[in-house]
Amino acid sequence: MITVALDAMGGDHGISVTVPAALWTLEREPALRLILVGQQDSLEAELKRHRAQPNARLTIQHASEVVGMDEPPAQALRGKKDSSMRVAINLVKQGKAQAAVSAGNTGALMATSRFVLKTLPGIDRPAIVTTLPTITGHVHVLDLGANVDCTPEQLLQFAVMGSILVGAVEGKSQPRVGLLNIGEEDIKGNEIVKQTHELLRNAHLNYVGYVEGDEIYTGDLDVIVCDGFVGNVALKTSEGLARMITHFMRQEFKRNLLTRLAALVAMPVLNAFRKRVDPRRYNGATLVGLNGTVIKSHGGADRIAFANAIRVALAEARNNVPERIGRELAAVTVEGATA
Amino acid sequence: MITVALDAMGGDHGISVTVPAALWTLEREPALRLILVGQQDSLEAELKRHRAQPNARLTIQHASEVVGMDEPPAQALRGKKDSSMRVAINLVKQGKAQAAVSAGNTGALMATSRFVLKTLPGIDRPAIVTTLPTITGHVHVLDLGANVDCTPEQLLQFAVMGSILVGAVEGKSQPRVGLLNIGEEDIKGNEIVKQTHELLRNAHLNYVGYVEGDEIYTGDLDVIVCDGFVGNVALKTSEGLARMITHFMRQEFKRNLLTRLAALVAMPVLNAFRKRVDPRRYNGATLVGLNGTVIKSHGGADRIAFANAIRVALAEARNNVPERIGRELAAVTVEGATA
Repeated sequence: MITVALDAMGGDHGISVTVPAALWTLEREPALRLILVGQQDSLEAELKRHRAQPNARLTIQHASEVVGMDEPPAQALRGKKDSSMRVAINLVKQGKAQAAVSAGNTGALMATSRFVLKTLPGIDRPAIVTTLPTITGHVHVLDLGANVDCTPEQLLQFAVMGSILVGAVEGKSQPRVGLLNIGEEDIKGNEIVKQTHELLRNAHLNYVGYVEGDEIYTGDLDVIVCDGFVGNVALKTSEGLARMITHFMRQEFKRNLLTRLAALVAMPVLNAFRKRVDPRRYNGATLVGLNGTVIKSHGGADRIAFANAIRVALAEARNNVPERIGRELAAVTVEGATA
Repeated sequence: MITVALDAMGGDHGISVTVPAALWTLEREPALRLILVGQQDSLEAELKRHRAQPNARLTIQHASEVVGMDEPPAQALRGKKDSSMRVAINLVKQGKAQAAVSAGNTGALMATSRFVLKTLPGIDRPAIVTTLPTITGHVHVLDLGANVDCTPEQLLQFAVMGSILVGAVEGKSQPRVGLLNIGEEDIKGNEIVKQTHELLRNAHLNYVGYVEGDEIYTGDLDVIVCDGFVGNVALKTSEGLARMITHFMRQEFKRNLLTRLAALVAMPVLNAFRKRVDPRRYNGATLVGLNGTVIKSHGGADRIAFANAIRVALAEARNNVPERIGRELAAVTVEGATA
């Protein structure tokens, strides 16, 4: 049995998403226990609305405060010691839960997780890693915004953590690791990337070398490493492009009666296609490098997306990802390459 | 009449693309003159294949060498003084052409352009700018890979150049300028971005502030500024995602007889959609900041794509973009902000 603590108040929609997502996931995952962390009265009322109540696999842990979506991380950390986010992470620290999930503010979640759980030995700063779809499956990309300026040593740590994560959760023995770079400049890339390339070549990883942005989606890689600024831009750019393409497609199919009829005929195909690129299936980013599993859900996640983040937490907790990273970190890196 | 010099030997396909693209564009643009630069015999033979010959609007300028697609820029610059690329740029320098277009190697094109044409006063290094489609029109993004590490002053120069370019070519009086950043980190962005933000706020530009990756495609901006590493990753990531989406769509429509029939019915709509996101329509990136107009075409461009690059050259030459940038640069930047 794996216990996951949910920051039930976090995200744009709070309990109206987190509670039904919890109930939905519990039905499908018999080996899962959930702790809903948040305002007891609201949570009880919301459960009642869904004709549910606390039970052996679903408990409520009261927390009197909520971290605002735009609240500065330092303020949340210092001023809201009884926030649903903080209490959920405390449960992981105390061993009462094996993972925490929050759709709350990323900065506050990162700051609180680092403060409460601490980073693993040999890790300077945690990174944010998520899966993205590819032509043949999916790929893990990190960092996605936790670290805007990275040293080569940090980027090496990201590669090692990503590699262990993929190995642990997917059972792949030699995950293929690529370093995001550009191919346009006279001498490719910047100094940091070039130094990282040397570190990666000497690490005990299945390092395939530099990759360019378009290779994120080809399926030729399991892990792609980049600094948080670049990773965040790549992720957000992809979201924006996907939205534009969807918009254009809808517009073309709505143009006139004939195209509307075509849409009707093509509906099952379009739905199958939509399902395949549904970003909700990829919701749930891991704060990797901590003494414990913390999963960040999109703030705007709906029930299906938040349920997916819970499942990511379950998979990583079940596979003891933080312990494995802690244990294997020293073995996989070249001696002296990381602090 | 505007004269454009074409590096007819450049790109993956050389004259088999550049010559038909030239003929096709001349038919449609009566105020255009083209100079095909490359091996005289090959060019004459290729023209003959298309039942064409040199005339008042289409001349051949012999050049005995060709820069290889993977040739180091320094080697091309020093060793191939009679390359089709170099001779095309020389024609701009000599005033015999108002713009040059090449599908050759980006590094060599940038190095040769800088050496022959020089940068405009006040510009440290040229940038690469291209248009990308948006929900409501298109946007200019720079830099796309010429400058991997940029100072705040350089990023300000990019903003100014992009703004003048959009003003000149599209007649927009107050192009909206955004600075690409991320919203995930405790304190947004890195030091360079923050300092650039301050410079942009004080420049005489219609600066709207920080934007995230997804805002590239919303149509809310005319110019988006970023360093070449980030811009290149955003561009390539978009190309990769678009390819994956196309692949998935094709796969779903080919699944069985029923979906193939649906594809048949939906064909006109799918074609209209495809046309709208056709990357060939956006081929032709400007090397901005030079004493002259140089347009870089995708190496793999086909006839339609290369013809579009010629049209970009025509539009910028017609609107005297380099002269305007040179003239307005001082006026738009805050005194002392640029060297």
